[in-house]
Amino acid sequence: MQELIAQELLPALPGQSPQALEDAATISIATDRLAFTTDSFTVQPLVFPGGDIGTLAVHGTINDLAMRGASPRFLSLGLIIEEGLPLELLRQIIKSIGAAAREADVNIVTGDTKVVGRGSADGIFINTAGIGECGPHVPSVTAAQPGDKALVSGTLGDHGIAVMVAREALEISTDLQSDTAALHTLVAAMLEAGGEAVHTLRDLTRGGLAAGLNEIAASSGVGVLAEATAIPVRAEVGSACEILGLSPYAVANEGKLVAMVEPAAADEVLQAMQSHPLGTDACVIGEVISESPGMVQLQTPIGTRRVLELPAGELLPRIC
Amino acid sequence: MQELIAQELLPALPGQSPQALEDAATISIATDRLAFTTDSFTVQPLVFPGGDIGTLAVHGTINDLAMRGASPRFLSLGLIIEEGLPLELLRQIIKSIGAAAREADVNIVTGDTKVVGRGSADGIFINTAGIGECGPHVPSVTAAQPGDKALVSGTLGDHGIAVMVAREALEISTDLQSDTAALHTLVAAMLEAGGEAVHTLRDLTRGGLAAGLNEIAASSGVGVLAEATAIPVRAEVGSACEILGLSPYAVANEGKLVAMVEPAAADEVLQAMQSHPLGTDACVIGEVISESPGMVQLQTPIGTRRVLELPAGELLPRIC
Repeated sequence: MQELIAQELLPALPGQSPQALEDAATISIATDRLAFTTDSFTVQPLVFPGGDIGTLAVHGTINDLAMRGASPRFLSLGLIIEEGLPLELLRQIIKSIGAAAREADVNIVTGDTKVVGRGSADGIFINTAGIGECGPHVPSVTAAQPGDKALVSGTLGDHGIAVMVAREALEISTDLQSDTAALHTLVAAMLEAGGEAVHTLRDLTRGGLAAGLNEIAASSGVGVLAEATAIPVRAEVGSACEILGLSPYAVANEGKLVAMVEPAAADEVLQAMQSHPLGTDACVIGEVISESPGMVQLQTPIGTRRVLELPAGELLPRIC
Repeated sequence: MQELIAQELLPALPGQSPQALEDAATISIATDRLAFTTDSFTVQPLVFPGGDIGTLAVHGTINDLAMRGASPRFLSLGLIIEEGLPLELLRQIIKSIGAAAREADVNIVTGDTKVVGRGSADGIFINTAGIGECGPHVPSVTAAQPGDKALVSGTLGDHGIAVMVAREALEISTDLQSDTAALHTLVAAMLEAGGEAVHTLRDLTRGGLAAGLNEIAASSGVGVLAEATAIPVRAEVGSACEILGLSPYAVANEGKLVAMVEPAAADEVLQAMQSHPLGTDACVIGEVISESPGMVQLQTPIGTRRVLELPAGELLPRIC
């Protein structure tokens, strides 16, 4: 199997074949400021409506680079495969990796495959690390400022609920799909419109919007006030969350971000988002405030405020 | 557990704490030619004489960078942890990662932790990716030339046999240790002595010397002729291999390399190796030939030649 992967499957990935046998790939990058990130993917089930673990592994790492305003350039790929994983499924996953990388114009230049015995892994685990080129402005989770508008790029919870429905074979909804997508071109459009006014970008993966906002509040030492009625959630996601006893704000996404943007530039950035295919449902959901630093508050439809807490543990484990 | 790791264990690693909460770390590198590599580690048992999975994960990726003549600079760290992994063991592994990184002067700037349920992973899997700065000369597995001398940096098979003895609780030997080590300073000394005459470097991990030489022969389109009596193997490794029915040439190492060096520079490079603590047992084991390209031949003690084949499958699975 190891041979098959190394000789047949991996060479089909963009960028990898010429150097596949070297211990390390050599790469050229024109800038001296790079972004570097890594993520491991353990999602169950491996395939879900709208994508599979391979799609996620490419999008997830690209998105982490994009959140620093970096153009994704190179990926590494580490596969840990359980003996007995059906070959057709492996082929499909590798194909998804290749398609996602090609679509995002990134090269997978180095990789590693380990095969472990039956029962030692859940089918396949994937790790990707990524290198991107930073631009002139590097948004940071520590840079949100009171007055900033909080913008989200679209509906929340689609990925988590799609995976959950697939995993539990729930008969709730049939047309809900993961939102998995590479966000770097959306980010490029936002930075072109807003430049340094885009203080903070965060992709809303594990722990969803609740985790993202809490991390920003804590890291920037600010408060966040969000308007519940402004947060876009699809009706079927809302219904599924009610049935499952989950909050759509705490469910993972893989193609959505929140941005903290200076108020003077917020309109322009929002328009840039709405003009991009991955941001058509973008909207303002709240703002950064100086009161209650480190805390996220939610203005409810009935006019009261409640604390939106950092999700304790993982509400939906193995979602990415 | 995820919280504990993110908040208590990982911040103790060199380089990671200031940016731990960002989606991607930003790094500065002065050169525009980089080396990039990744490796996943699934070794069983997790701890063995001379090291543990954490030590290996740092050394393995540093060594892959070093084989391209690159100075290792930055590592990423992806942990996939099985629920129930004893906390003390996890602490020990993280401590080993930190110690190995500090000793090699590399920073772990970005990381990710996933916890999977009991039975979904074997305690812990670790992925590291690494970025290094290339020097003026980049050795390649494709660059070996007929006439080159084949140099190994020391005794072979120590790591694989140490892991195997620990795994099987064999009562063969008590003082054998893994040779796990970061080879970049040894490589720097070799390149200082030999420069461009050092055509090829290969660390002898999975598949050991046999795999390394076969990969060089195939990638460079040359033959390799090695002298069995010249290949350094510790007596206890030789005995253990006899008992286990293994070839010491096919057993993994994690702190040994083979170099293909122009004959005129071979003595000087060999002396540089022998003057380095990780190369005291370095020696010439054979040479590159133009006959039988793609094939590795072994001159036996009785004067005959036999083909040293690429180890089929993994003789010692889960060794790295």
